[in-house]
Amino acid sequence: MRISELGEFGLIERLKNLLGENIIGDDTACVSLGDVNLLLTCDLLLEDRHFKSFFPPASLGWKAISVNVSDVCANGGTPKWALVSLMVPDFEVSYIEELYEGIKRACEFYGCRVVGGNVSRSDKVGIDVFMVGIAQRFVGRSTAKVGDGVFVSGTLGDSRAGLELLLMQKDYYESFELRLIERHLRPTARIDYVKHITKYANASIDISDGLSSELWHISKRSGVKIVVEKRRIPLSKELLLFCEKYGKDPYDYALNGGEDYQLLFTHPVHRQNPFLDMTQIGVVEEGQGVFIDGEPLKAQGYKHFG
Amino acid sequence: MRISELGEFGLIERLKNLLGENIIGDDTACVSLGDVNLLLTCDLLLEDRHFKSFFPPASLGWKAISVNVSDVCANGGTPKWALVSLMVPDFEVSYIEELYEGIKRACEFYGCRVVGGNVSRSDKVGIDVFMVGIAQRFVGRSTAKVGDGVFVSGTLGDSRAGLELLLMQKDYYESFELRLIERHLRPTARIDYVKHITKYANASIDISDGLSSELWHISKRSGVKIVVEKRRIPLSKELLLFCEKYGKDPYDYALNGGEDYQLLFTHPVHRQNPFLDMTQIGVVEEGQGVFIDGEPLKAQGYKHFG
Repeated sequence: MRISELGEFGLIERLKNLLGENIIGDDTACVSLGDVNLLLTCDLLLEDRHFKSFFPPASLGWKAISVNVSDVCANGGTPKWALVSLMVPDFEVSYIEELYEGIKRACEFYGCRVVGGNVSRSDKVGIDVFMVGIAQRFVGRSTAKVGDGVFVSGTLGDSRAGLELLLMQKDYYESFELRLIERHLRPTARIDYVKHITKYANASIDISDGLSSELWHISKRSGVKIVVEKRRIPLSKELLLFCEKYGKDPYDYALNGGEDYQLLFTHPVHRQNPFLDMTQIGVVEEGQGVFIDGEPLKAQGYKHFG
Repeated sequence: MRISELGEFGLIERLKNLLGENIIGDDTACVSLGDVNLLLTCDLLLEDRHFKSFFPPASLGWKAISVNVSDVCANGGTPKWALVSLMVPDFEVSYIEELYEGIKRACEFYGCRVVGGNVSRSDKVGIDVFMVGIAQRFVGRSTAKVGDGVFVSGTLGDSRAGLELLLMQKDYYESFELRLIERHLRPTARIDYVKHITKYANASIDISDGLSSELWHISKRSGVKIVVEKRRIPLSKELLLFCEKYGKDPYDYALNGGEDYQLLFTHPVHRQNPFLDMTQIGVVEEGQGVFIDGEPLKAQGYKHFG
């Protein structure tokens, strides 16, 4: 059987069984060292899978750090140290330097540090970042509680709209289009939510594959039913303008678009914090499955370039 | 300027300056967490750079773990946790399973654990392993002391001979040839040296690029002269048979062949341990440069497939 027939999640299940450990369950692994929780995660950006060669290298550097920070923050951790494993063709040195400039800026922004790594020659560009974080309390996807509210940070769907705009390679973009493109190229990991997640969240995950997939992850792993109201899903003005202009359904983008790097988390409803841009989109109930406006929700994993 | 003109070490210098940190100096980064030293390292095996597609997948898994353990051990650490980032074409699932079988066996052997990772589709196979170790005392390459003896573990040059034999793709191999091939495909990281390195070594590095390069790393970073006696360099019977059969110079293999994953370290001569397979090959003196039998030694970095 080929990998494509088995699918990504099927493959990961097989490998988990093979290793005989409870691994790859959350996006970060949590290990104890004395009384410290270390969070370990890695995420890879690969040319033609996760980005195109014409994307600005500084944005790739920024994003490679951000997607790892996002995983750490989702699980209640603070990012500390990173290793960068770079795969790169025989490009101009300035390309790598710009890429590293993006890495540097992101690390300054998130308060973490690149402490090592290596560079390998390859046919295509790849940036594999390994991040170590520290958490007071690990918050995973398997501990949502019946009665919790279901919340998301920010707005959803912007990143996929930005990607589609980028791929149009237009000569001129309207300013709302440029803002969407920016959200795809330079997502900001929600490090401002770490305290809130650590203090109150029962379950948490970052939205990298799309809201629908992440809802299913929490539902399955926590053994709960999640009920979502569509009209509550937060949409940006920019996404609405985009969908109006190109005749698209914004909820399709919000539910199935990937790479927003917002957070999806659950906790008692009264823990809502008015100083954070969080929105309650649903509730956790006894049972199983994910429902939207009373209908079962399909999980459409995000495929970058099919 | 292209990366190839600048060279790997030139590029790394540029990136270090750009990040403004003292990084990528040793093969592992050492960070402090309370009173614990964490060692962080990553090493990538990439198809057609570090291996060929016909190499057995189980050996790739074993090797991907071993090369990272080797870095950790060289710096006086014990390997603890690994993340595996796998890049793979749409192969048969059994290929990945065999690869993971090799990973699992290596982890059992070294006493470490795979705690996470991910799988990405790509055109070629790549295995990027991130390893976290713990060290009582970090032993780097910059602290060799004048008067130290210079030691290596095991025998050198076997791996490159094994690689050349593999690339011949012969129908029949003699048994000494199979042993050399095995040393290339399944190197054993010298985890049995960790206590010795931690207790006595002033400087230490693993021999991944070749003895000549590693001697230069210690000499330059420690600001010392290293004087080596060629006849003292330990050679295996298998390498001698190989060189006799194919008309090669065993010292070329020992000095410039890569991927032996033996250790090169310095400490006072009287610390030699008769229970370990260590050999003194030279001494550390005041001054600079690396000399072999009175002549300056050229550092020939190991290039896998040119």
